[in-house]
Amino acid sequence: MITVGILGGGQLARMMVLAGAPLGLRFVVFDPAADACAGQVAPLQVGAFDDTAALAEFAARVDVVTFDFENVPAASARWLAERKPVYPNPVALAVAQDRLSEKTLFQELGIALPPFADIRSRDELAAKVAEFGMPCILKTRRLGYDGKGQFRIRSEADIDAAWQTLGAQVEKTGLILEGFVAFDREISVVAVRARDGEFRAWPLTGNWHVDGVLSASLAPAVASSSQHDTAIDYARRVAERLDYVGVFALELFCRGDALLANEMAPRVHNSGHWTSDGAETSQFENHLRAVLGLPLGDTRMLGHACMLNWIGQMPEAGPVLNESSGHWHDYGKQSREGRKVGHANLRDDSAVALADALERVGEVLGVQAQVAPVLETLRR
Amino acid sequence: MITVGILGGGQLARMMVLAGAPLGLRFVVFDPAADACAGQVAPLQVGAFDDTAALAEFAARVDVVTFDFENVPAASARWLAERKPVYPNPVALAVAQDRLSEKTLFQELGIALPPFADIRSRDELAAKVAEFGMPCILKTRRLGYDGKGQFRIRSEADIDAAWQTLGAQVEKTGLILEGFVAFDREISVVAVRARDGEFRAWPLTGNWHVDGVLSASLAPAVASSSQHDTAIDYARRVAERLDYVGVFALELFCRGDALLANEMAPRVHNSGHWTSDGAETSQFENHLRAVLGLPLGDTRMLGHACMLNWIGQMPEAGPVLNESSGHWHDYGKQSREGRKVGHANLRDDSAVALADALERVGEVLGVQAQVAPVLETLRR
Ligand SMILES: Nc1ncnc2c1ncn2[C@@H]1O[C@H](COP(=O)(O)OP(=O)(O)OP(=O)(O)O)[C@@H](O)[C@H]1O
Ligand SMILES: Nc1ncnc2c1ncn2[C@@H]1O[C@H](COP(=O)(O)OP(=O)(O)OP(=O)(O)O)[C@@H](O)[C@H]1O
Repeated sequence: MITVGILGGGQLARMMVLAGAPLGLRFVVFDPAADACAGQVAPLQVGAFDDTAALAEFAARVDVVTFDFENVPAASARWLAERKPVYPNPVALAVAQDRLSEKTLFQELGIALPPFADIRSRDELAAKVAEFGMPCILKTRRLGYDGKGQFRIRSEADIDAAWQTLGAQVEKTGLILEGFVAFDREISVVAVRARDGEFRAWPLTGNWHVDGVLSASLAPAVASSSQHDTAIDYARRVAERLDYVGVFALELFCRGDALLANEMAPRVHNSGHWTSDGAETSQFENHLRAVLGLPLGDTRMLGHACMLNWIGQMPEAGPVLNESSGHWHDYGKQSREGRKVGHANLRDDSAVALADALERVGEVLGVQAQVAPVLETLRR
Repeated sequence: MITVGILGGGQLARMMVLAGAPLGLRFVVFDPAADACAGQVAPLQVGAFDDTAALAEFAARVDVVTFDFENVPAASARWLAERKPVYPNPVALAVAQDRLSEKTLFQELGIALPPFADIRSRDELAAKVAEFGMPCILKTRRLGYDGKGQFRIRSEADIDAAWQTLGAQVEKTGLILEGFVAFDREISVVAVRARDGEFRAWPLTGNWHVDGVLSASLAPAVASSSQHDTAIDYARRVAERLDYVGVFALELFCRGDALLANEMAPRVHNSGHWTSDGAETSQFENHLRAVLGLPLGDTRMLGHACMLNWIGQMPEAGPVLNESSGHWHDYGKQSREGRKVGHANLRDDSAVALADALERVGEVLGVQAQVAPVLETLRR
């Protein structure tokens, strides 16, 4: 009987637990919050991510450790790795936690990306804004998620505003300036690498963000075959360099034929949620297979799939469940503004039928704006 | 937040819990055994099925009640139904628990079936054996499962042996004699009926039993279109007459073009396990949708699927996980002779690819005999 420890007890941990039970796995989930939603489906240990006594207790309960939350302190991951196998390894986690190291790695690997610079002062900011041109984006190097910790600089005046908003973070999280990409589309590669180095990717996913938060995904994404190959090759290079084990996502911008890397997420990723209902093997199951050293599952997709994120509160389930393609994913969370509380997956063999279902769901739930870009893509 | 109570905490409850969590459901599982395997994924209340105090506590914790175990005393189901909604209803449960009432119902509904008779004495047994001819089968009316509580009568001498083995049960469970069907194939209809009467069936499943226990299933089953329509019509008639809500299975014998009913199971059924990986909606999810009054999910199948039961102990997972079509279902049980401890599902768009995968699995795991009849059917 193998027990998997998961650091972080949110929806990603919850969905890993649900995917892992059929593999005969047991779980312990570690989270600072007593109401972490994965605690509804697995034993939950409440503790701070830097509490060594709590981590020691956790380590004693589990055979192998993985993550639902990428911002676990790198020191805690290293500490655990001295006691139990930890996948992905703490170095990979540390690199992916820090936009600067991540982008530096991309650059070393020959992966195209927008210009970026480490920013330590207001003067450096002003100088780099002048160099990159506007618009550009100031971001915290670490601890950002869902578009938080970002400031878009569109005019000279914004430089002061940006510094006022984020300058205080310079010591705590660091800051990075990035050139702005006027992208046509955003895509992600969700991929998995096994302990023995085997690498597999799901078909590319197209993603739409609203206010920096993922709103909808569509797979397969619209991409030229050269973009497809390049994207997957980029993901493979990153995974190999980091000796990465498990599922990860590489987010990319498409502009014309060009492809520019944005960032990587060292964990199962929101843009891979469609795989639960639209692929032979879900990202959650394949992450566990990789972590446990089991053979990887097939990443082929079944027809066409899209995912709609539910933010803040769950809508009524009926309109989605009424669709023959409709699948529901409620994370069992309390409603709270801006919180990811669930998602719907729609899957169909036919893109036309999928579009029709999506349109109905958009109308009945009053989320036409959310479905519009997906619909447009499906029907072009 | 809706909490579903499940009477019985075996693998069926476990798989319902895993399918229900994404619907945002919570569960309480009630079982006499402290190590019931559904207790690994949901809160478990340990108690006897006829302990009214325990049932009262259970009723207070849940919003709606359903079953993983069909042999819950009918009186307990009725008692609970006075306090909370219970699906399927206690009358349907009581009918399906008793081979005599079930077969009497089939007869009333014009469903073809082998001859049967209530048996109360050795003399009645001898008289009915003479009437039906040999072979025939003496079974307990109630509490039989996996071929237990059955005696095949092949010669005059077997009459005494059968009576010696099962005669003592005549008061406790009752006895029934059935004519033996020299079937070509066994199939089942796994179907679901909603609270509002909507009825849906998955494609027919072909089943192979060894020593009275399900060994393998294949969907879609080999059946003529008239057998298909008849089987589904039979299932619908039974469900409507019983005002059945939830998933159930109707097991049938095929002999030439004829179709004879064997029995019904008032719950998700082993012959529907392939739906977890081979259908748009699994039997577990649709059972919960029905019980909760949610719209039913699509029962279309994705390609071809087969299921192999693991009895006694789990084999190595690798050979199945190595197949692109392979999915693993370990119930988290201790090994024990004759116990259902897990199953594998294989699913592929192509029947040829499925057969090839099945053949490899059979060879590597040394279960050639188990896969042989499925292979033969897939390749005919
Ligand atoms: N350099 C950029 N050029 C154009 N758009 C950008 C840029 N950086 C971020 N964005 C937009 O903001 C979104 C979120 O940015 P980013 O991925 O950096 O944030 P995050 O907080 O790490 O988000 P997540 O939690 O989704 O990974 C991007 O998907 C993109 O839509
Ligand atoms: N009348 C019959 N004629 C021929 N074979 C029979 C007959 N009754 C039972 N069998 C064989 O034994 C198997 C199990 O019988 P039955 O379905 O009555 O048992 P059970 O204990 O209720 O099983 P389960 O738990 O699988 O529902 C059948 O699937 C069939 O292979």
